[in-house]
Amino acid sequence: MSNVAAQMSNKDQTFMDAALAEAAAAASRGEVPVGAVIVSGGEIIARAGNRTIELHDPTAHAEVLAIRATCTELGHDRLEDCDLYVTLEPCAMCATAISFARLRRLYFGAGDEKMGGVEHGPRIYAQPTCHHAPDVYGGISERESARLLRTFFKERRT
Amino acid sequence: MSNVAAQMSNKDQTFMDAALAEAAAAASRGEVPVGAVIVSGGEIIARAGNRTIELHDPTAHAEVLAIRATCTELGHDRLEDCDLYVTLEPCAMCATAISFARLRRLYFGAGDEKMGGVEHGPRIYAQPTCHHAPDVYGGISERESARLLRTFFKERRT
Repeated sequence: MSNVAAQMSNKDQTFMDAALAEAAAAASRGEVPVGAVIVSGGEIIARAGNRTIELHDPTAHAEVLAIRATCTELGHDRLEDCDLYVTLEPCAMCATAISFARLRRLYFGAGDEKMGGVEHGPRIYAQPTCHHAPDVYGGISERESARLLRTFFKERRT
Repeated sequence: MSNVAAQMSNKDQTFMDAALAEAAAAASRGEVPVGAVIVSGGEIIARAGNRTIELHDPTAHAEVLAIRATCTELGHDRLEDCDLYVTLEPCAMCATAISFARLRRLYFGAGDEKMGGVEHGPRIYAQPTCHHAPDVYGGISERESARLLRTFFKERRT
């Protein structure tokens, strides 16, 4: 993993901003505020925020929804030329889905000590059972990502 | 994990046979032969086989499809009273989805050294990032499960 927050391009920041907008939209629906976009050829192919409550689907994390939407859009299940931007470190489920989808690069915001599967817990991409690992860049817009989550859970507790 | 193949009930065998039938049906569609059923109150709520190729969806493993179908059927995303029978050791993605869905018990067939996430690789349920682990029973009908997979890949190679 490389922390590339300092040397991010304007385009990378634009894509992470789009993911943050999806996270904010998720919060406004009462969902845990995590958002993701998938990019190919400099264009956003799919945008998604968490919808686990709305869809009654524990697998409806932002990353999984974005992967499924991109695969539908492109008509195949391997996204070798695509990059994923997500506001929070993916969990083990999403990290593995990213591997199966053969995504090229993973950019994420805040790390997730409690549920993360890339830099925490199972560290999916370091396992012998992982047969494709994306290039991983963490710490992008992590303050804004973490702020969205903190505000969301604080409001839930009061 | 407990190997309970020797003391399985007739009902458990019936459910695993139903999962094996889903695996065989997946093979006939050209999909990797893995099948799953979810059971509640002694009844099968959902049946699924792999459909990753058909759906252009790398997340469309039998377990994920069965979980999503059960959640839709029951109208919520927590399946505390449900058990999952699957012919192959779940991968890290499916093992994590099983945890998120709060499934009570996981019965699986053959172990999977290459891709498994329960007894191999990330051992998802032993991680500090795992906040619900089902009771796990492996080795059920493992010969038949492995035979289906072996036959499928042998036919693909010739």
